[in-house]
Amino acid sequence: METLGASLVHVAPGLVEIALAPRPAILQQHGFVHAGAVAAIADSAAGYAALTIMPAGAGVLTTEFKINLLAPAAGERILARGKVVKSGRTLTLAQSEVFADAAGKQRLVAFLTATLMTIEGREGLED
Amino acid sequence: METLGASLVHVAPGLVEIALAPRPAILQQHGFVHAGAVAAIADSAAGYAALTIMPAGAGVLTTEFKINLLAPAAGERILARGKVVKSGRTLTLAQSEVFADAAGKQRLVAFLTATLMTIEGREGLED
Amino acid sequence: METLGASLVHVAPGLVEIALAPRPAILQQHGFVHAGAVAAIADSAAGYAALTIMPAGAGVLTTEFKINLLAPAAGERILARGKVVKSGRTLTLAQSEVFADAAGKQRLVAFLTATLMTIEGREGLED
Amino acid sequence: METLGASLVHVAPGLVEIALAPRPAILQQHGFVHAGAVAAIADSAAGYAALTIMPAGAGVLTTEFKINLLAPAAGERILARGKVVKSGRTLTLAQSEVFADAAGKQRLVAFLTATLMTIEGREGLED
Repeated sequence: METLGASLVHVAPGLVEIALAPRPAILQQHGFVHAGAVAAIADSAAGYAALTIMPAGAGVLTTEFKINLLAPAAGERILARGKVVKSGRTLTLAQSEVFADAAGKQRLVAFLTATLMTIEGREGLED
Repeated sequence: METLGASLVHVAPGLVEIALAPRPAILQQHGFVHAGAVAAIADSAAGYAALTIMPAGAGVLTTEFKINLLAPAAGERILARGKVVKSGRTLTLAQSEVFADAAGKQRLVAFLTATLMTIEGREGLED
Repeated sequence: METLGASLVHVAPGLVEIALAPRPAILQQHGFVHAGAVAAIADSAAGYAALTIMPAGAGVLTTEFKINLLAPAAGERILARGKVVKSGRTLTLAQSEVFADAAGKQRLVAFLTATLMTIEGREGLED
Repeated sequence: METLGASLVHVAPGLVEIALAPRPAILQQHGFVHAGAVAAIADSAAGYAALTIMPAGAGVLTTEFKINLLAPAAGERILARGKVVKSGRTLTLAQSEVFADAAGKQRLVAFLTATLMTIEGREGLED
């Protein structure tokens, strides 16, 4: 997260937001945030959202995610909003919407769904 | 790619390999390469594999990918091998297998499938 | 849809619901609706949702979908609610939530995201 | 499987093939096999492939799959070839390639990846 310049900006039960202020190192040749960086914050937001509802002493691990890249991630701020879709004993499904703020407008640029596995005895996000 | 410490190590028609020598900045709390970095090189390998078979003057853009994270990405070298599964006029499907080399053994740690869209008139990988 | 015993129960711009009254032919060995039938109505609901916002004379074709199967699809009625997440000129992203109604309760049993491609000059859902 | 007119044609450790002779009931308006039926046999082939390597007394359950639909599924026979990509204690990744045989030629029409969960104490494929 530090490498990308991302930070947690909102945490509530089942809902986490991560914001990214784009740096040159994560931009691709046309000045958009690289898909890998978009996926990384979207996956992290989904994982942390799942973590907020885990019992004490349990962590989570992403087993798979799919991301649809809908528009170029260009703007002053990229925001990933992760939320839990359904929690289960072993597996939890979470989603993330990723928005780009540019010139006072917010645009949906990516949509991710992720499966998180509950890991007993290890706290935190295992990504 | 530079930010991650990744480099192209093999390029052939429909097949591209990208290697990563893990740096502290991309490791998570247990010393494994972060899922976001694994996804980034896997997506890039798939995208470049698609690019090798595009006509001159055409570029590619990832529209979606799914990655299954199968084992911790730990080792001296992480290698993503991308190849084209089926090419089409507008959309191409590519896959990437990601391997971790550790103590002389190679282990499959992730598997990705990606849809790449052909972009006429813009060269390169639009990620 | 007839083969499955499914029918359209709600259509609005960008939103379509398909209901299924489970028949023995589509149940698996434990009495749940087969994952293939759940995926079929979820994909159709997403596709029809995309079709509602297409211009006259254009059809849609599913290029990929991912479905997370969250709980057994058991009950008197299975309902797939498809909606458009983001529409584009060539590609549209839609999602479907699938619910099972049993003993007066509604439970989320599956979640799908699908990419639909706009097909000029051919009306209808090309699935 | 009977509802679709599908049958197991090859079973080996980690590899299963399912064939479908298209019937009118599973064709869509242009005479192609419906995407839902293609997904159903592809998912079943992946699930049975995983089942072949499970210990006695254990079954499998699909937790998610993604399918890329690459070409119309038209022909005399549709064949889904499922194989295990990586098996784990709790989760196994399998893939299926779906081919259509038409006029003496075989064409790749779909590609699926599926996560299967091992279910102790229940035999068979829980789909």
